[in-house]
Amino acid sequence: MRFGTYFFLQAPPGQRHADIIARELDQMVWSEQLGFDEVWLTEHHFIDYGLSVDPATLACAVASRTSRIRIGLAAAILPFHDPIRLAEQMALVDIISKGRLDVGVGRGNRPSEFRGYRIPQVESRERFDEAVQIMVRAWTEERFSYDGRFFQIDNLRVIPKPVQQPHPPVYQVCVSPDSIEGTALRGWPMLNSLLFGGVEQLVASRDRYVATLQKAGRSPADIAALLDRWGVSSRNGSRTAIPRCSRASGPWRSGSRRSRGRGSWPTRWPSARRTRWRATSSRCASSAWGSSCAG
Amino acid sequence: MRFGTYFFLQAPPGQRHADIIARELDQMVWSEQLGFDEVWLTEHHFIDYGLSVDPATLACAVASRTSRIRIGLAAAILPFHDPIRLAEQMALVDIISKGRLDVGVGRGNRPSEFRGYRIPQVESRERFDEAVQIMVRAWTEERFSYDGRFFQIDNLRVIPKPVQQPHPPVYQVCVSPDSIEGTALRGWPMLNSLLFGGVEQLVASRDRYVATLQKAGRSPADIAALLDRWGVSSRNGSRTAIPRCSRASGPWRSGSRRSRGRGSWPTRWPSARRTRWRATSSRCASSAWGSSCAG
Repeated sequence: MRFGTYFFLQAPPGQRHADIIARELDQMVWSEQLGFDEVWLTEHHFIDYGLSVDPATLACAVASRTSRIRIGLAAAILPFHDPIRLAEQMALVDIISKGRLDVGVGRGNRPSEFRGYRIPQVESRERFDEAVQIMVRAWTEERFSYDGRFFQIDNLRVIPKPVQQPHPPVYQVCVSPDSIEGTALRGWPMLNSLLFGGVEQLVASRDRYVATLQKAGRSPADIAALLDRWGVSSRNGSRTAIPRCSRASGPWRSGSRRSRGRGSWPTRWPSARRTRWRATSSRCASSAWGSSCAG
Repeated sequence: MRFGTYFFLQAPPGQRHADIIARELDQMVWSEQLGFDEVWLTEHHFIDYGLSVDPATLACAVASRTSRIRIGLAAAILPFHDPIRLAEQMALVDIISKGRLDVGVGRGNRPSEFRGYRIPQVESRERFDEAVQIMVRAWTEERFSYDGRFFQIDNLRVIPKPVQQPHPPVYQVCVSPDSIEGTALRGWPMLNSLLFGGVEQLVASRDRYVATLQKAGRSPADIAALLDRWGVSSRNGSRTAIPRCSRASGPWRSGSRRSRGRGSWPTRWPSARRTRWRATSSRCASSAWGSSCAG
């Protein structure tokens, strides 16, 4: 099972935004030092709920200061991006990170963000669909043309190409049933969250995803491989994954909680590392496992 | 006088794009180690002439790997950006760099880039004007509204704000006479280049800039301060700046040229540093001083 950390860059009243960003970027670097497998970033705008306003910039900052940990977007909100620009940015970040990028994509849900980016929210699904097609073609084809409702592209050569071939893994954020069916039909893994409900909705999402893959004629081996990359699945993607995740999260959380106050870290750790671990574990212990574990 | 290095990320045939990007990013870091004052980045799309496809991503990579050197855009091409997104990105980079960002802005000139970004080139001037107004207001006002031809913004709060106050220095790329007059009327410094001609056109640009500032009623002290930040001026902005630049560049270039082949670097330098200096000086020696000196 893989564990990651997830950063919203939330801005409580009275804290300087510059300090919050510097501190959370440090914590992303510590995530690598502490042995986590992935750092996940989100995208929000115009609100203290999240200063993570630009996935490319933040992902590049993590990429530039780490060497091993994977860097995931959960997610870039496609209706707010030009898909050509985002394809160029993600290729750069994939190159700078030496192939450590996972591109999670979402449709967005906050009306005030759609207003601020001057995009009618009712168009989000169609814009999302066009953007993902354009990005994948920009990454994988030497030149391409595209004729959509929102985007018309004529014989364009987008460079540089990403280093991961054929392109960085794409994950789709799935909340609604038709997001789940959409990502299944594209052959992409799901990115699920326990922020929106308990384990039951996760199981229901998984079942709908598998049923759609089966209807689309995917082989059992294909389905197993996709479940292996599921946001909350275990590495072997078995039906026991969710209960195992739940069981595993208990000791991990209580361990984090204990280590905050009582010095349960290995005594051989240097003082700076203990201070870092204390900061990280303090943050982890107060969050639900579903928001921290996504790999 | 301040010296900087300028990176196009040019892609000669037969070289892997990922290698070019990694190598030039290393050279940006070495620019700091070698004592340069600023790294300058450009923006180009769809062409081997420059893989510098996204200013925010590249500036953030430099910001994350350096601590002293300033990071300048020369320039972000505004018609290809959403001004809200670019304001958010630049604020993030200003924060991550701890206030080391200089935001050069330009209108763009390559028709194929306008086609690729689906922007009629005839609109470039008006889009540029709206974008700069929006960016400055997004950086400096808690909330703002804007009603333009291309952008309508309703009571928007853009966060985070940059750390440099009131906002990062803005430079305008000036090639045409009315770019020069436009930047003078905004009260911004010029960003000039000797890529487009000799010292004579630079002197002519400077004279037109100063005349426009005088007509607009700027005081001699204001004008001196703006010339002090001129892309190719000396720090005291005197009328002797240009000949002094030219004189200074001679020994610097020939020094670089010599050091490439004959081991004129200090013998106490460790081997790795000598290798880096050789790479940088080799690049510097083959470029005109005007393209390397912009601070």
